[in-house]
Amino acid sequence: MIPLGNLPESVRVVEVGPRDGLQNEPEHVPTDVKVAFIEALAEGGLRWIEVGSFVRPDRVPQMADTVEVFRRLKPRQDVTYLALVPNLRGLERAAACGVRAVAVFTAATDAFAQANIGTTVEGSLRTFREVVATAREAGMLVRGYVSVAWWCPYSGRADPRRVREVVLELLEIGCADVGVADTVGAATPREVQELLELLLRDVPADRVGVHFHDTRGTALANVLASLQMGIATVDASAGGLGGCPFAPGALGNVSTEDVVYMLEGMGVRTGVDLERLCAASRLLEAHLGRRLPSRYLQAGPPRQLT
Amino acid sequence: MIPLGNLPESVRVVEVGPRDGLQNEPEHVPTDVKVAFIEALAEGGLRWIEVGSFVRPDRVPQMADTVEVFRRLKPRQDVTYLALVPNLRGLERAAACGVRAVAVFTAATDAFAQANIGTTVEGSLRTFREVVATAREAGMLVRGYVSVAWWCPYSGRADPRRVREVVLELLEIGCADVGVADTVGAATPREVQELLELLLRDVPADRVGVHFHDTRGTALANVLASLQMGIATVDASAGGLGGCPFAPGALGNVSTEDVVYMLEGMGVRTGVDLERLCAASRLLEAHLGRRLPSRYLQAGPPRQLT
Repeated sequence: MIPLGNLPESVRVVEVGPRDGLQNEPEHVPTDVKVAFIEALAEGGLRWIEVGSFVRPDRVPQMADTVEVFRRLKPRQDVTYLALVPNLRGLERAAACGVRAVAVFTAATDAFAQANIGTTVEGSLRTFREVVATAREAGMLVRGYVSVAWWCPYSGRADPRRVREVVLELLEIGCADVGVADTVGAATPREVQELLELLLRDVPADRVGVHFHDTRGTALANVLASLQMGIATVDASAGGLGGCPFAPGALGNVSTEDVVYMLEGMGVRTGVDLERLCAASRLLEAHLGRRLPSRYLQAGPPRQLT
Repeated sequence: MIPLGNLPESVRVVEVGPRDGLQNEPEHVPTDVKVAFIEALAEGGLRWIEVGSFVRPDRVPQMADTVEVFRRLKPRQDVTYLALVPNLRGLERAAACGVRAVAVFTAATDAFAQANIGTTVEGSLRTFREVVATAREAGMLVRGYVSVAWWCPYSGRADPRRVREVVLELLEIGCADVGVADTVGAATPREVQELLELLLRDVPADRVGVHFHDTRGTALANVLASLQMGIATVDASAGGLGGCPFAPGALGNVSTEDVVYMLEGMGVRTGVDLERLCAASRLLEAHLGRRLPSRYLQAGPPRQLT
């Protein structure tokens, strides 16, 4: 009778603010602020947090202190801290920090892969084959990502069959799960379900995650559409960090607060304490000196006037 | 296979920016700007536009020029211009302007009705009985609205059975359809579907509309959830007008641009030309001297770099 159907009972929210969010801030956020932010996110109940990346510091100066961030973070048995690694060199640096979970990123199109990681999709997968094998030998968990899975700023509409091939190859080389990303925030719910339907013919739902940007306002509707397909891993960014504050068009990642508010309101458990999560985002707002775009963060819970 | 199911083939978007939006602007927008805005909305393909209200000008000064706005608007056979009327006196003023469609507003709770229209829900329905009968005798179409249909800032969670009673009574006294409004932007998709499921036991889907605010980011997901229930009338506000720019917590109506982008992306026809709609909103942005919150308006269409 109710067309929402059977949503997952709980969702694993992967917090990407400290990496995907802060990487897009024009200024470097000091290491002590990052560490306080990440600790506050963990205190808020987030169990999967993307902390940083082991990429070339001259290319991504915002992530140059990832080693130091990992060194300072309090070890927590119940939290998985992830780092992005582009190659074996990055993996070695991650391993030296004691990182236990890493992510590898490729794309659905060669044009985007060339522009962002300097190689073709096939080239990146060849690199990742060795990276993932080495990481797994070291006991690490590995996530894979496919960028521009719906729309590529260079090639236009992504081919779902190509997305499927890349997802299958990432799983085949040993990724525990793969996140499909709407990098430019162009997808709408039916396109989301069409791609997921194709993927889920071959892949169990617990090996697929979704990563949405709210550039055109559709991110929460896309999360809902994904849950209806059985997806239970959702990336989100505290405060909606990840847009560029100086480019109004480049609105950022779907906000963790908004995702958690919607899911908990539907009876889908996230394990996240919204009030503590907002405290983490406000810590960052205080440092950045501006409001973050998350709507729930700005509005707070519905209140009853007395 | 695809859980979105059968969405309506087309949706009637009711543009509420000129009334619900501008009413919440701290400063009065000059009549010529309003008229140009409304004409631009009509040129953009919007066929239902809430133009103003015939309320006491000392209470709502932003709407004091509604008579003049109606007088100046170019008559269009294919556009229905609506006005809010609170009582017989307002209806008479509307009729004198040649208004052909009016809306009456009540609430799901007495506390909200008292605070906003100075009477109980029952009291308002008694008034509306004569207003609606008189309007229909004059050949007008009448829409009804139920505010705070999910959450009331005075009484907390609204009782869906009470919402159903009020909806049924508005239809019984002669409203063509009734819009249920999430006035404070608190609802999440499952709550939306639960209320609609209750209403649709007695009422055909084409007599129910939805009116969402994006205060906590859930508005487009709620629109999607409504469409899945067969609802095909959706209120929206150009640019997302309707929040108070000086109260960050009070984010406004769901933006027409974002609604249209999502619906057209799912193959649901709206008849709206997104580019022209954005031109209408930008006309208002130029007057207000600030960006409106609509995400699509800020981002524009997904572009392919060449």
